[in-house]
Parts: sequence; structure tokens; C-alpha cells
Amino acid sequence: MKFYEDMPLGLSAEPEARFTFTAEDIKSFASEWDPMPFHIDEELARQSPVGKLFATSIHTIAASVKLNHTAMTEPMAVIAGLGWQDVRFPLPVCAGDTIRVRSEVVDRRESQSKPDRGIVTSQISVFNQHDQLVCEYKILTLVLKKPS
Amino acid sequence: MKFYEDMPLGLSAEPEARFTFTAEDIKSFASEWDPMPFHIDEELARQSPVGKLFATSIHTIAASVKLNHTAMTEPMAVIAGLGWQDVRFPLPVCAGDTIRVRSEVVDRRESQSKPDRGIVTSQISVFNQHDQLVCEYKILTLVLKKPS
Repeated sequence: MKFYEDMPLGLSAEPEARFTFTAEDIKSFASEWDPMPFHIDEELARQSPVGKLFATSIHTIAASVKLNHTAMTEPMAVIAGLGWQDVRFPLPVCAGDTIRVRSEVVDRRESQSKPDRGIVTSQISVFNQHDQLVCEYKILTLVLKKPS
Repeated sequence: MKFYEDMPLGLSAEPEARFTFTAEDIKSFASEWDPMPFHIDEELARQSPVGKLFATSIHTIAASVKLNHTAMTEPMAVIAGLGWQDVRFPLPVCAGDTIRVRSEVVDRRESQSKPDRGIVTSQISVFNQHDQLVCEYKILTLVLKKPS
């Protein structure tokens, strides 16, 4: 089990796993959660400013979290996700694009109210197959300390 | 069609729609996107600090976006989502919980590089059936201005 102490500042991971967005996946995910016309209809997407079908923001984040899990070689003593900061989508993720993720611990602090836990902030960067940054965010996670 | 000009500061919406998280939905969504043990196994969830099965952060956000769509009485001239800020999950959303959303335009500015569009920032607040805040975030959306 990986605890707060096992996540030092600067710890990074670049898992080998990749995720490819098919047009069908984009439309199916968006139909359920974020049915904007340009996420569910290829002809309307072509007429939109982006010019082609692209994934909803939530789909991109979900896929990045899925990829991040592949970097977990052993279970983490996570209590819960506390929040995300500075979530940016500088470029659209389009049908046929393949993404990969990089994570790095950029901040960490002990809980002030509960001495058995700490808060780890990781910067997540998501790149497409052309090594262009398509999404980035910081994720704050509440993690147990090693039992003393 | 609703344009940038139709989204003044302070414009708010509280759609009637509700979303209930079943244990099956929580486990199914998490299995695909965020397979932490406490999101996919009720016994492990009972042993975790939260003490019961709760939804992954992405599932909560996705459901809030879905609910927000029900407030759109006419299409919006959205180009794309640019990002989210200050995403917080102050309380877990557990199996059986029902959420509702409130949105409010809290900032808006014209694009500096492209005169045909503006950026609208909305504060989204998500409450459970006990009127407790379970999630909140700001969403930045790129919106076309009215054609002149």
C-alpha cells in the first residue's frame, strides 16, 4: 500500500497506456452526459468552429483518470478526491485522437485537522498523438499516512 | 439561439431535474473510468474512511453537466468548454443520493484575440437531497456573440 509518505514532491509517472477516442465513443458518452450538438452529430460538428467531432471535456478527463490508474503498481491509501484546480482544455480531442498522460506531485501538506492524513496535489498533463497538450489539471487527493 | 449577449452577469438557473445515483450506476461508471476499490466494492467501501459506497468525482461532475442541460430551453452558441476552476467535493455522493444543480453567471468578458466571441464563467453548485453542497465548480465557456 502506498501512503502519503510514499508520494514525495516531484514524483512523476508516464504510464505506457494509451486511450483512443472513436467517433462512436465520443457520441455515446456525450449523448449520456453532455449532449451538445457538436459532440453527438458529425455534420453539425463539421459546421461548428472546431470543424469536426470532438470529445466532451468530461470524457477527456475520465479517460485521463483511467490512464492514470495504469500507473498504480500497488494500491494507494486514498481516502477521497478533494477537488481539481486549473482544469484547462487548450486543444480539442477529436475522433481518432490517441492520448497519454503524465502526472507529477507538485504540492503536499499534512492535514491540519486530522494527523493521520495528508493532501497530495498532482499535476496531470494529457497529450495527443502529436505530443500536443490537450488537457491539464491539478488534482487534490486526501491520502492516509503510514500507520505508526 | 442564445449568444454571449444573452448571458448577463447574475443570470441563474435551478432546473427541476434530479439525478439519483444507484449503487449499480456508481460501480459501473467507476469500473470503466476510475476503478478505486471504494467506488466498485461495497464491502471495501464500508471499511474505508467514508464508510459506504460513493461516486467517483467524474461521475458527479458528469451528472451535474447532464442536469445543467435540462435548463437550456434553447440552443446556446457554445464553441467549446475552455476549462474549470476551483472544483471542490466537500461531501461524498453516496449510493441512493439524489442531486440537483444551480448555475449562475459570475464573470464574463469579450475575447481579446477574436471579436466574434466571449468567455462566460458560470458557478455550478450541486446539492444532495438534504440540501448539502456536495460539489461546486466554475466552468469557462467560449460563446459566440450575436452576428452583427
